[in-house]
Amino acid sequence: MRGVPKSRVRAADVGDVPFRSRYSLEESLEDIERYYLDLKARSVRPLSVGGDHSITYPILKALGKDAPLGLVHIDAHCDTMGAYDGSKFHHGGPFRLAVLAGVLDPERTIQIGIRGSSNMFWEFSHASGMTVIYMEDFMSIGVAGVIEKARAVVGAQPIYISVDVDGFDPAYAPGTGTPEAGGLEAREGLALLRGLQGLDIAGADVVEVAPEYDPTTNTSQLAAQILFEEFALMTLGRP
Amino acid sequence: MRGVPKSRVRAADVGDVPFRSRYSLEESLEDIERYYLDLKARSVRPLSVGGDHSITYPILKALGKDAPLGLVHIDAHCDTMGAYDGSKFHHGGPFRLAVLAGVLDPERTIQIGIRGSSNMFWEFSHASGMTVIYMEDFMSIGVAGVIEKARAVVGAQPIYISVDVDGFDPAYAPGTGTPEAGGLEAREGLALLRGLQGLDIAGADVVEVAPEYDPTTNTSQLAAQILFEEFALMTLGRP
Amino acid sequence: MRGVPKSRVRAADVGDVPFRSRYSLEESLEDIERYYLDLKARSVRPLSVGGDHSITYPILKALGKDAPLGLVHIDAHCDTMGAYDGSKFHHGGPFRLAVLAGVLDPERTIQIGIRGSSNMFWEFSHASGMTVIYMEDFMSIGVAGVIEKARAVVGAQPIYISVDVDGFDPAYAPGTGTPEAGGLEAREGLALLRGLQGLDIAGADVVEVAPEYDPTTNTSQLAAQILFEEFALMTLGRP
Amino acid sequence: MRGVPKSRVRAADVGDVPFRSRYSLEESLEDIERYYLDLKARSVRPLSVGGDHSITYPILKALGKDAPLGLVHIDAHCDTMGAYDGSKFHHGGPFRLAVLAGVLDPERTIQIGIRGSSNMFWEFSHASGMTVIYMEDFMSIGVAGVIEKARAVVGAQPIYISVDVDGFDPAYAPGTGTPEAGGLEAREGLALLRGLQGLDIAGADVVEVAPEYDPTTNTSQLAAQILFEEFALMTLGRP
Amino acid sequence: MRGVPKSRVRAADVGDVPFRSRYSLEESLEDIERYYLDLKARSVRPLSVGGDHSITYPILKALGKDAPLGLVHIDAHCDTMGAYDGSKFHHGGPFRLAVLAGVLDPERTIQIGIRGSSNMFWEFSHASGMTVIYMEDFMSIGVAGVIEKARAVVGAQPIYISVDVDGFDPAYAPGTGTPEAGGLEAREGLALLRGLQGLDIAGADVVEVAPEYDPTTNTSQLAAQILFEEFALMTLGRP
Amino acid sequence: MRGVPKSRVRAADVGDVPFRSRYSLEESLEDIERYYLDLKARSVRPLSVGGDHSITYPILKALGKDAPLGLVHIDAHCDTMGAYDGSKFHHGGPFRLAVLAGVLDPERTIQIGIRGSSNMFWEFSHASGMTVIYMEDFMSIGVAGVIEKARAVVGAQPIYISVDVDGFDPAYAPGTGTPEAGGLEAREGLALLRGLQGLDIAGADVVEVAPEYDPTTNTSQLAAQILFEEFALMTLGRP
Repeated sequence: MRGVPKSRVRAADVGDVPFRSRYSLEESLEDIERYYLDLKARSVRPLSVGGDHSITYPILKALGKDAPLGLVHIDAHCDTMGAYDGSKFHHGGPFRLAVLAGVLDPERTIQIGIRGSSNMFWEFSHASGMTVIYMEDFMSIGVAGVIEKARAVVGAQPIYISVDVDGFDPAYAPGTGTPEAGGLEAREGLALLRGLQGLDIAGADVVEVAPEYDPTTNTSQLAAQILFEEFALMTLGRP
Repeated sequence: MRGVPKSRVRAADVGDVPFRSRYSLEESLEDIERYYLDLKARSVRPLSVGGDHSITYPILKALGKDAPLGLVHIDAHCDTMGAYDGSKFHHGGPFRLAVLAGVLDPERTIQIGIRGSSNMFWEFSHASGMTVIYMEDFMSIGVAGVIEKARAVVGAQPIYISVDVDGFDPAYAPGTGTPEAGGLEAREGLALLRGLQGLDIAGADVVEVAPEYDPTTNTSQLAAQILFEEFALMTLGRP
Repeated sequence: MRGVPKSRVRAADVGDVPFRSRYSLEESLEDIERYYLDLKARSVRPLSVGGDHSITYPILKALGKDAPLGLVHIDAHCDTMGAYDGSKFHHGGPFRLAVLAGVLDPERTIQIGIRGSSNMFWEFSHASGMTVIYMEDFMSIGVAGVIEKARAVVGAQPIYISVDVDGFDPAYAPGTGTPEAGGLEAREGLALLRGLQGLDIAGADVVEVAPEYDPTTNTSQLAAQILFEEFALMTLGRP
Repeated sequence: MRGVPKSRVRAADVGDVPFRSRYSLEESLEDIERYYLDLKARSVRPLSVGGDHSITYPILKALGKDAPLGLVHIDAHCDTMGAYDGSKFHHGGPFRLAVLAGVLDPERTIQIGIRGSSNMFWEFSHASGMTVIYMEDFMSIGVAGVIEKARAVVGAQPIYISVDVDGFDPAYAPGTGTPEAGGLEAREGLALLRGLQGLDIAGADVVEVAPEYDPTTNTSQLAAQILFEEFALMTLGRP
Repeated sequence: MRGVPKSRVRAADVGDVPFRSRYSLEESLEDIERYYLDLKARSVRPLSVGGDHSITYPILKALGKDAPLGLVHIDAHCDTMGAYDGSKFHHGGPFRLAVLAGVLDPERTIQIGIRGSSNMFWEFSHASGMTVIYMEDFMSIGVAGVIEKARAVVGAQPIYISVDVDGFDPAYAPGTGTPEAGGLEAREGLALLRGLQGLDIAGADVVEVAPEYDPTTNTSQLAAQILFEEFALMTLGRP
Repeated sequence: MRGVPKSRVRAADVGDVPFRSRYSLEESLEDIERYYLDLKARSVRPLSVGGDHSITYPILKALGKDAPLGLVHIDAHCDTMGAYDGSKFHHGGPFRLAVLAGVLDPERTIQIGIRGSSNMFWEFSHASGMTVIYMEDFMSIGVAGVIEKARAVVGAQPIYISVDVDGFDPAYAPGTGTPEAGGLEAREGLALLRGLQGLDIAGADVVEVAPEYDPTTNTSQLAAQILFEEFALMTLGRP
């Protein structure tokens, strides 16, 4: 049976960001940033679940306030687009915004799993100095090689880990909004995360999980396992 | 086989509202209103498909600009709530806004199919003079009785027809965002619409259709049939 | 639990029509007719499951060979169309063919549940003298009234019963090829069948069952119950 | 959006029955009975959700300990079978066991919605004096008539309400283990429950809810609404 | 098709083969051949989507009319069977027919991904000189090796590319009629196609796509990506 | 089309274990053991399909009665847990029971595919001398290496093969009760089985198949292919 959890986290350990209004995008981003600033002030390393990838920008704004963070980013898309439909605060641009806000260090950023025919927005990634591992590179370099590269890129300074489930092939994560055929296997992504052990992880997330699109529940199961790996990394890897 | 349509409407006959930005709710409402004002200026009677019930407010603002419209409204909810989460422009309040804007005549408004345990926002409907047919009334009055009442309420002046698919029981329309058990049968709703023949219909819609929640495709099939009935009413009933 | 059947019908009691080739429509119709002629010769009253409604024509050709049969027909469509796409042997025309072949008596035929915006092929039904109960008539006459009418139309001579699951509302039978919103409830169709007790039933079928379109299995469950009712009618009603 | 509940019941208000072992049916029944005896001792009127209808027997054993209860029972099946597969503690027999244990008064029991071709186990219901409303009776008597009959049967003494979701037509509740075509509409069942207002309700349940079989979530939505109605009845009807 | 496409190609760019009758297999094959002969006469390189793999035979008959084509064929099955059920025009035999008609050069044909317990019809492939890459070979040779082999087999002369989605593992393409466990990954198939760049491609297809069997939409997403790759190959690789 | 099998096994070749009562776990285990003892007495090598992995314990008890068997075990979990919820006869412990009963030789047992965050019950496996191939080992050793290791571990004496479909990644087998992200590919598992050719196989199974959780039917298709491979192994590998 798909089991019932035996123990539950206590209410004090988790939280939903309190929003002033669901109708104001700008206010919501401010609300997220304020909430994470408070977590940071209390030395809490946050683990976040989305939802739209746009949430990662205000999270980075809070966590990278004192010094820009490095980033390990698994995704089918670079998410460094500019303004779209009249706004720059969308799920295709959080990492551009974070670089421009000085909270993300592009030289210490690696993006893994990039691909797709509708995907032509990687200029900023290259221009700003990010390392981009396209899916065809991933296949030839292999998981061990990508781990080595990632560790070399991000170094020993604090980093953030952001996993968009569409980085995985839709066979593993059908429940997402912009699936792209030809992505990572589940076990490759999990191995990649485990390969980051010992790094100084300031926070992590898994985003773009949309269970409504997945009658098998596989997407949620995979997202839960990713959270578990990220949690383990933050505990084991504590410098 | 679920057939392929033999003929298609020409591009000139249909249109999507052009939006400046999907990130500004206020601008989007203005964009819808402007688009329908143009349709009205060209004497086009619009048939609309949603999407969120909030779209009906700017449509009514355009179509009722010269004189407030009457309304036949099939729904599980009154949709006359006030501000919520800091905004009044949500899918629970279009008809309150329309009354306050002077484009909807509450005395010539009938709301049919109202029910649900999470539903306690009908004060404005009653206070403003709308006729509310709760589901338990619907069952005792019957379709013919409700048609008679609707025609008496809206009279011979121009009216709008708004059908929220959640007015139907979720058995008939599972693909919607706020399903409420215990609603209309498909054939009852269709008969109700046919009973409006001869009225002066300025526009009509079917909203809250969410095919992603319905693996049977029934919701879309029903919505298409509702549009067909509304189209027939607007053609046959042309005064 | 959805149980496992405890006993199984013996191989001798059931059969699949042996086909010479799935690639010849004409040959397949001949194969069906020959098979049912053999059943008739052995005084077997057949209960059939489809599949496409086109199978009912060769079945009627066999069973009505000596004298034209009466018909109780539950369906959203009249299925009395002429040639279509270059062939007259399709699922929209079996009852026209049966009348023209002299094996179905249109004066003793009643069609129940007819409706739908894509449905404009009822001329032959009316021209040949069939009784057509449109869905709006069904709602005003009621089940008991329709049973009375059906018994009056078909009389005491041998009849055939043909149930297309799309006669039911798609809420009850989503797994079918040409669903039409606004049909019979399951319990109405079952009550209608029970109301035919005592008639001389030469054969019966349930057709257009397509389980692939129905993740709930409801369509198959309903079709099985219809077969049970038809079986009971043929046993209890044996003259 | 299928909304997130704004408030939650406090932990002290709800509970799961603590079981010694999931592998012993007899022990589990004892565990349930003991748990409900404790609730009864604390004057708590329990509202229960299943799961298998077999849970209702130990619940009745606890709640009817001092005096046999009356029962309003909505179901496709009488659930008064004897031993099956070597055990009498199964989901087809709780009400037989309860009568034999002296905790359920068959003369004050009404069973509503009974039907189905696999259903031939109603002898005990009739022999013990229960009132059985078959589905064909339900259709001719109507909801108001059934309410009147139910109130006459159960009287003013304490009663229990047990709703098996398979009492509803599978179109309304596909997510259940033994669906039977031709059942109640959702709104009929809800109206029936509301018609019991003012009765002395010692406890209530909704059982046989199996969300895994229902990709539309309708079954769970309906079950939640039934619980809401039962909760309202217990609050409003408090003598 | 279920659903309305989000964006539409202009009518002049696409076409449906006009069929005389859906009831004559032979006529339909002639209709396809005639249509593609016309495309060929106008120097159009066709990209086709199915549907049954039997369509590839008349396409090859048209495109290979002047000189037999080479073939890169991704599939779980060889599709070189003989007559079946009295006809040779089925989805298991198009490439046998094409060789026998002199429009396909078996020496310049490579079949990739072959496997399956119900699959024992590869004699003709071997006898006629085709290169068959069984799935176990694929796993040991690897994508790069298979690309090298494919380029060696087909050479510089014009070729056709035919992709049956069942060549992929059902995890990647559940929506197909004869799934076989143990096939290609999506990214392997896409890499394989990209490895054909520079070849002289006379036409290409993706077939056996059956969205009805896939509630995740993954199969359609993958098929669309395959079409994109094939389109790119035909543009970039133009000699 | 998903085809209809052309031939069927004769009734004499297959069988369901006759159970005294589904309500007694202990009796059911005895019933299974007795049934397989009879098969063994008649020199039948059984191929079994589950259902819960707990069935493998009584099967091993029968088949390993005269001499403890070796085991090739594909699974996400070791299934060597102790008592749980008051019983030791559950689906997490069959191989511990089999070792303790002396019917399974832990030194000749290899467990392949082990992983998962809820999985911390491998002490007994290691303590008893089993060879455990965790998923991360599987990825670095590769299929050929694992086959070599498996053959070395089990040797030439009789073995049993037990395949839990949750050994495969949920992308390949979503229809199971305790899915764990990051498992085997279908083709790897099939290749692994083929690599066991020539071994002395006393029996084999595939378990934990739950088609209700898989709307794509992929899990059942994969399970069927596994059975085919196991059947082939038992025939080809007969010493």
